[in-house]
Amino acid sequence: MAKVLTSKEENYAQWYNDLVLKSGLAENSAVRGCMVIKPYGYAIWENMKAELDRMFKATGHENAYFPLLIPKSFFSREAEHVKGFAKECAVVTHYRLKTDEVNGGLIVDPDAKLEEELIVRPTSETIIWNTYKNWIQSYRDLPILINQWANVVRWEMRTRLFLRTSEFLWQEGHTAHATSKEAEEEAMQMIGVYQEFSEKFLGIPVIVGTKTDSEKFAGAVETLTIEALMQDGKALQAGTSHFLGQNFAKAFDVQFTNREGKLDHVWATSWGMTTRMIGALIMAHSDNHGLVLPPRVAPIQVVIVPIYRGNDELPPIAEAANKIKAQLTALGISVKFDDRDTRKPGWKFAEYELKGVPIRIAIGPRDIQNGSVELARRDTLEKKIMPQEGIASYISDLLEEIQERIHQKALDFRSASTHRVNTWDELIDVLDNKGGFALAHWDGTPESENRIKETKATIRCLPLDAEKEEGKCVVSGKPSKRRVVIAKAY
Amino acid sequence: MAKVLTSKEENYAQWYNDLVLKSGLAENSAVRGCMVIKPYGYAIWENMKAELDRMFKATGHENAYFPLLIPKSFFSREAEHVKGFAKECAVVTHYRLKTDEVNGGLIVDPDAKLEEELIVRPTSETIIWNTYKNWIQSYRDLPILINQWANVVRWEMRTRLFLRTSEFLWQEGHTAHATSKEAEEEAMQMIGVYQEFSEKFLGIPVIVGTKTDSEKFAGAVETLTIEALMQDGKALQAGTSHFLGQNFAKAFDVQFTNREGKLDHVWATSWGMTTRMIGALIMAHSDNHGLVLPPRVAPIQVVIVPIYRGNDELPPIAEAANKIKAQLTALGISVKFDDRDTRKPGWKFAEYELKGVPIRIAIGPRDIQNGSVELARRDTLEKKIMPQEGIASYISDLLEEIQERIHQKALDFRSASTHRVNTWDELIDVLDNKGGFALAHWDGTPESENRIKETKATIRCLPLDAEKEEGKCVVSGKPSKRRVVIAKAY
Repeated sequence: MAKVLTSKEENYAQWYNDLVLKSGLAENSAVRGCMVIKPYGYAIWENMKAELDRMFKATGHENAYFPLLIPKSFFSREAEHVKGFAKECAVVTHYRLKTDEVNGGLIVDPDAKLEEELIVRPTSETIIWNTYKNWIQSYRDLPILINQWANVVRWEMRTRLFLRTSEFLWQEGHTAHATSKEAEEEAMQMIGVYQEFSEKFLGIPVIVGTKTDSEKFAGAVETLTIEALMQDGKALQAGTSHFLGQNFAKAFDVQFTNREGKLDHVWATSWGMTTRMIGALIMAHSDNHGLVLPPRVAPIQVVIVPIYRGNDELPPIAEAANKIKAQLTALGISVKFDDRDTRKPGWKFAEYELKGVPIRIAIGPRDIQNGSVELARRDTLEKKIMPQEGIASYISDLLEEIQERIHQKALDFRSASTHRVNTWDELIDVLDNKGGFALAHWDGTPESENRIKETKATIRCLPLDAEKEEGKCVVSGKPSKRRVVIAKAY
Repeated sequence: MAKVLTSKEENYAQWYNDLVLKSGLAENSAVRGCMVIKPYGYAIWENMKAELDRMFKATGHENAYFPLLIPKSFFSREAEHVKGFAKECAVVTHYRLKTDEVNGGLIVDPDAKLEEELIVRPTSETIIWNTYKNWIQSYRDLPILINQWANVVRWEMRTRLFLRTSEFLWQEGHTAHATSKEAEEEAMQMIGVYQEFSEKFLGIPVIVGTKTDSEKFAGAVETLTIEALMQDGKALQAGTSHFLGQNFAKAFDVQFTNREGKLDHVWATSWGMTTRMIGALIMAHSDNHGLVLPPRVAPIQVVIVPIYRGNDELPPIAEAANKIKAQLTALGISVKFDDRDTRKPGWKFAEYELKGVPIRIAIGPRDIQNGSVELARRDTLEKKIMPQEGIASYISDLLEEIQERIHQKALDFRSASTHRVNTWDELIDVLDNKGGFALAHWDGTPESENRIKETKATIRCLPLDAEKEEGKCVVSGKPSKRRVVIAKAY
């Protein structure tokens, strides 16, 4: 079979791009920096959405929808927010086109200039807090636990499919609380939801921690993050949850009467996860043959390919295939029986390998005689002959096993790629040669952090579960009590 | 109980607006013409989405996602499309803001002007057909059966919540076919899906027909529509499905090699349904007490309200309520047990009446003694005492009955509001005095249609099931073979 992908070892970035295109997940569009998410890629996003949505609702959240377009002045209201955000964004200045009477085509109608420009939302804190102002008078109106599924635009000059695009899809949770404690607990709960989603559903182990002040969300008091490790040794920020304190409530004058009858500003969180996670999913597990998808997120969990010559051989094979399909479907397993006659079995094998379908079943005339099937695992590429009898429950268990093995493999890779470093030279050795996470002492100062950033790596987070340990900052030699995670990142 | 709504009879438009606001479905935002869809309104949309999505997938469609922003020049490519569309739209001209060094705040950075303006999609035919061009070479690549769930923006000067907003949510199907016949069948299939969805799921009877040339979608060969009747006697276009012929394929040069090995342009359809349907749902069924929601689309199908004084009385009531709730949940019925102690039962009764919850159960101390509940239907406002024993299966049947009755009531209203008119005066009498659908003969000419439009009514559609009948055009007196539907419309 012809090699369709550049290998990871040869050129990781090219491997990634080849894989996204050739497995039919997404492609670049005619609009600079914006992608087209193709049906197979969107099916993965739908599965992610369904699982996250279920988790959000199980923790008491409701969905709602706020406007795409936000008045420009809203972004100036929260001082830190405006510094860190909203500069690189799509600005709507006019509301009408007209026919160009001279040259034909369309031109912007100069008479239809907006009094105040509107910004295509890069994130929705401002419009949402401007709305919450009217919803909240008393502690009885709290908490508000709302999530929004939406598209957002942040103008990007250098884009990569899923990982960095000018438009992306995401969810953004925006909650309002009567006390600081409750808001902090909410922010912590939601980073926990992201961790569980990432590990249990996508098989991607993550480190949970807090961002440094320089890396936190613009407008947040504290940003919690989950940091994943990709197979090239670079980190990827996979989801964030922000404790916003009273910053947005003060900026939008959202006050409430508390239980003691006194006026106070409302406490807030926001949290988001994006289509970037599809990029993380690809880079965490896939190989030089194509995608490797954990069964829980795979749009097709089992594919059945008939092997036959001439139309006489097909009917008994189709019968056996449809029987197995029905058994699997009854167990809630998503199955495709690909009986297209326009493609050869070898083409189909390659296609589903590329698309990362966890289990492939092939059935030929000999299998009909023997009551068997050939079963192939995508994760290990192992093949074996199995009896048709009992195949459904075998597959059901095997899907669980594959899910677990993919997660374990990623965990093992992360363990092997996590390095405790005690000196600047050791840090540089990890960043330049070994890759992966460097666990290092840091003195907590912006000066030392800036020195680290000069290497093009960043402090990814201060892990929540970091052990207490006396040590010396790898930059300054000053005392430190805990290690932080440093890595180059996407 | 204080009247919370303006009555329909007093002021229908005010009744509608009051109802949307007070039942917590949506509200106007700080951005002109854009609404905030609140959690209860969004929950209705989620139910609509889930059902439509299921129906689309059952008919072989997949979801995908295309960019929000479309290059201005794309709209000029299809001659009719540009005439009818894209004039009133949000135009992105710049991609960066900067701090105003003089006055503070943010200003548009003049150095960040786009070479070509981008339009926030009002509909996606252009960007999608520009993409399909790269996906289609041969008949083997066809059909493409794709749907997109998205937000769109069409600048509107006069807006009404759900019915006409500058930004709205919708789905847009865009399919590509090898033959005209197949595309026409697809357009017909999808208007059938909309009809079934509207009638079976929302309880709204619709007339299926074709639009006149002047009313069809800009760029379509033929537009199929479903037309619903609101309680004030005005029509509402509830969904459309367009046979686009080869217009967009020609505009974007999308050719394929057919089975005969010859190059041909691809045949297309598009079809859409929007958050406007929430407006239709409200106006089709609701009354002066609030929303009346058909059970299938209701976010809460059954609410249980405990009636008690003092905390001693609550535990046995809560026990009975939770038992019933568990039984109903097991039957797939969505139930809310509202045991909040911050609100009185009377307040809760009014609230769920306003929100249109189909069935309300109240349980008090006497019910605990008697093993009974009080059951109230929202559609008829009837109340009766029922035994707790067997209540779940009774409710399951009753929900079906309510669904059917709401549909039948709307059907009866439509029958009573449909008038066969044979003269201009009869037509005017219906339009000015009676309201509803006028079934009239029309000679098929734009001249007669324009005369009708002068009354502010329009030809809503040429019904597919119109009987053949010799008659005379109510405008010109010229011969006609079928009646068309004329009405004032939203």
